[in-house]
Amino acid sequence: MLEELKEKVWKANLDLVKHGLVLFTWGNVSEIDRKNGLIVIKPSGVAYEEMKPEDMVVVDLEGKVVEGRLRPSSDTPTHIEFYKAFKNVGGVTHTHSTYATAWAQAGRSIPFYGTTHADYFYGDIPCARSLTQEEIEGEYEKNTGLAIIEKFREDGLDPIEVPGVLIKSHGVFAFGKDADGSVYNATVIEEVAKMATITEQVNPYVVRADKFMMEKHYQRKHGKNAYYGQKK
Amino acid sequence: MLEELKEKVWKANLDLVKHGLVLFTWGNVSEIDRKNGLIVIKPSGVAYEEMKPEDMVVVDLEGKVVEGRLRPSSDTPTHIEFYKAFKNVGGVTHTHSTYATAWAQAGRSIPFYGTTHADYFYGDIPCARSLTQEEIEGEYEKNTGLAIIEKFREDGLDPIEVPGVLIKSHGVFAFGKDADGSVYNATVIEEVAKMATITEQVNPYVVRADKFMMEKHYQRKHGKNAYYGQKK
Amino acid sequence: MLEELKEKVWKANLDLVKHGLVLFTWGNVSEIDRKNGLIVIKPSGVAYEEMKPEDMVVVDLEGKVVEGRLRPSSDTPTHIEFYKAFKNVGGVTHTHSTYATAWAQAGRSIPFYGTTHADYFYGDIPCARSLTQEEIEGEYEKNTGLAIIEKFREDGLDPIEVPGVLIKSHGVFAFGKDADGSVYNATVIEEVAKMATITEQVNPYVVRADKFMMEKHYQRKHGKNAYYGQKK
Amino acid sequence: MLEELKEKVWKANLDLVKHGLVLFTWGNVSEIDRKNGLIVIKPSGVAYEEMKPEDMVVVDLEGKVVEGRLRPSSDTPTHIEFYKAFKNVGGVTHTHSTYATAWAQAGRSIPFYGTTHADYFYGDIPCARSLTQEEIEGEYEKNTGLAIIEKFREDGLDPIEVPGVLIKSHGVFAFGKDADGSVYNATVIEEVAKMATITEQVNPYVVRADKFMMEKHYQRKHGKNAYYGQKK
Repeated sequence: MLEELKEKVWKANLDLVKHGLVLFTWGNVSEIDRKNGLIVIKPSGVAYEEMKPEDMVVVDLEGKVVEGRLRPSSDTPTHIEFYKAFKNVGGVTHTHSTYATAWAQAGRSIPFYGTTHADYFYGDIPCARSLTQEEIEGEYEKNTGLAIIEKFREDGLDPIEVPGVLIKSHGVFAFGKDADGSVYNATVIEEVAKMATITEQVNPYVVRADKFMMEKHYQRKHGKNAYYGQKK
Repeated sequence: MLEELKEKVWKANLDLVKHGLVLFTWGNVSEIDRKNGLIVIKPSGVAYEEMKPEDMVVVDLEGKVVEGRLRPSSDTPTHIEFYKAFKNVGGVTHTHSTYATAWAQAGRSIPFYGTTHADYFYGDIPCARSLTQEEIEGEYEKNTGLAIIEKFREDGLDPIEVPGVLIKSHGVFAFGKDADGSVYNATVIEEVAKMATITEQVNPYVVRADKFMMEKHYQRKHGKNAYYGQKK
Repeated sequence: MLEELKEKVWKANLDLVKHGLVLFTWGNVSEIDRKNGLIVIKPSGVAYEEMKPEDMVVVDLEGKVVEGRLRPSSDTPTHIEFYKAFKNVGGVTHTHSTYATAWAQAGRSIPFYGTTHADYFYGDIPCARSLTQEEIEGEYEKNTGLAIIEKFREDGLDPIEVPGVLIKSHGVFAFGKDADGSVYNATVIEEVAKMATITEQVNPYVVRADKFMMEKHYQRKHGKNAYYGQKK
Repeated sequence: MLEELKEKVWKANLDLVKHGLVLFTWGNVSEIDRKNGLIVIKPSGVAYEEMKPEDMVVVDLEGKVVEGRLRPSSDTPTHIEFYKAFKNVGGVTHTHSTYATAWAQAGRSIPFYGTTHADYFYGDIPCARSLTQEEIEGEYEKNTGLAIIEKFREDGLDPIEVPGVLIKSHGVFAFGKDADGSVYNATVIEEVAKMATITEQVNPYVVRADKFMMEKHYQRKHGKNAYYGQKK
């Protein structure tokens, strides 16, 4: 069942290691098959180097395991909320990558300081609020997703234009059209977080870059008349 | 004698290199066989890449070498104090890993800033006081252990719930149920120390995360109803 | 056509990866054949590990593709302006390397703090102004080159003596006598940017090193009586 | 001539790469054969990966090349001054390693903040003054050595007890009983410089560790009754 997708999600999870985004088992990637409403996700707490494609778990949008011998990632309910709320999202990545998590712990959105950021994010990388005691003691992972969705709704953000988010005192979630796209964006977030840290160190009075520069860089890669890369 | 345990402790010492926690010979790992009251530990000042399982040294709880051609780690008396005081500890790791040692040199406990921390430490990672001149000129390594145990007693800490500690002007000791567990926790301490450094850089006014978040994250991994990872 | 040069430019692009200067496709290298007025440059948005020598694109000084199945780098018009304005430049590298880009985002030139810097740069590494809205919405990449050239003209800089530049809110361009030379200088810029960051952290009151030291170090490597390295 | 020593010095130079202390050709190691008064040193500006043992250059204490097809390191006159002034030094390493060079650029000695430092350095790692214009325009490399020796004389330092030094606005020189020992100490300096940077970041009010701790740690490794490591 969904063998090709399992292989793809497995590889995307290994890319977390390749890009230096995870220690031990601290991250997970999923992708949804919209036709069947089924999600393929990493099993919980299994080491990347030991994982095989057939260990990937298939769950439905209610979180029921449809196939797989192993428990799905404990963050599965968060992934599900994203797939339910964001119809244009096809892949989700969760990490505790060092610099981005430090910004999450600091409770700060990452300001748009330059074109590296604008090439992938149309605006600041937002930081969602931390959860209330009630939310944490209740359906914690589901509520994590809901708090992030609330942030996107309130700020009028599109998860494809702003394909990632921090959540206070926790870590990073990144979105993409598929699993690979979400891993790519998680990698960008870590690099942009590191650059922003050094930028503020070198110039504590730095302000955001010009909005028309953001517009230009985002559109030349992702707009109607995009001219970066090869024709597809 | 204890051939299997020697192999295990040898591998755990090599993992210090794999996880980037040591330069040259600056770290050591041990594990205790509680049944016989015997400890297997790295030999002193031997390069990791040249070490073999049979080079591991077996000592008893008085520090007497029971088997082995080489001298045990000079930190052996510290390890022994931990095994005597903490009955639930089965493995001990000592490192001078970069960020954690910087916090030790700074004389600061690492505050609980997020879930990466709470997934393994139920509260701040404590920093024990530096030793007095008398303690240093006396049985130095033993007194290092005693100062750390004093800190745990005073603060009412359990070395399995708070499986690691800094000691002022020195470095890191990490605990675990076995050798591997202590290396794992030493790796977590280094990463959490790095994240905390960047967190404070990005937001100098940051405060600790909410206690109920700590409770939730620690318990979902280690509590009675833990649901992270696979059933065992 | 220009097969040897394509091979050389291809290798120079791979060196960006080797020296840790690029993530994904975020950088490009070109070299000009002055005799024919033809430039060989990386194709746009193609992964380094998949690229082959024959994928390099040949363009003329008007930006017309003379040979190649793929689109040239979107930064090609910037490279062209450099080759037109700087007759002594034979190679150009563009990167978003972490520390140097942070300085660009901070809008600061990198001050001359020591001999590592002076061995390759005869003075500060300049930071050109950010572009106006008009320049960005017009021929953006061409205008990027023009703003940098303006900076060199105004400050009386020679791109061989000061073989690199930051551009505000964006990243790095490095120059060389050929493609390899420009990659070398891009690597120096990243290292010098990292050192300058730490230098200011360790001593916030640091001032530039003495001018006569800069003179000495630059000349012993690049002057008439240079004595560093082997006779050629 | 001195084939064994050439092989040893060649390997020691390659260790600079292994320990991450050098970019390109930015470092060199030498060792002296005291019996013959001959020094074996790296050739100038040659890439580490291309160097062979037979490329090492033999010079005498006047700096005359006694054997070798290539020019010796341009820093050879600095090495020679050390061998003339410090009779107990057998090996010298020069690097521009990142953190240590930043401290040199900052013009600061590295304070003794903990046992990692005290295990190898009996006191602060000193920073020698920068050279005067006259010294730089004269016999620059020789004067670099003399300024460092002046610092050791004035502060009453022994280059075996304090086996390394920074020189303002420049970089690092490390000493050892042989080539390998000096590379080892250069590696320690870089790590200690990084730790000190983070220590001051985490606690801007930190003061030096206790002198009796320095005494203890230095002596347990290097004193008459040293008990660290194996009997020799």
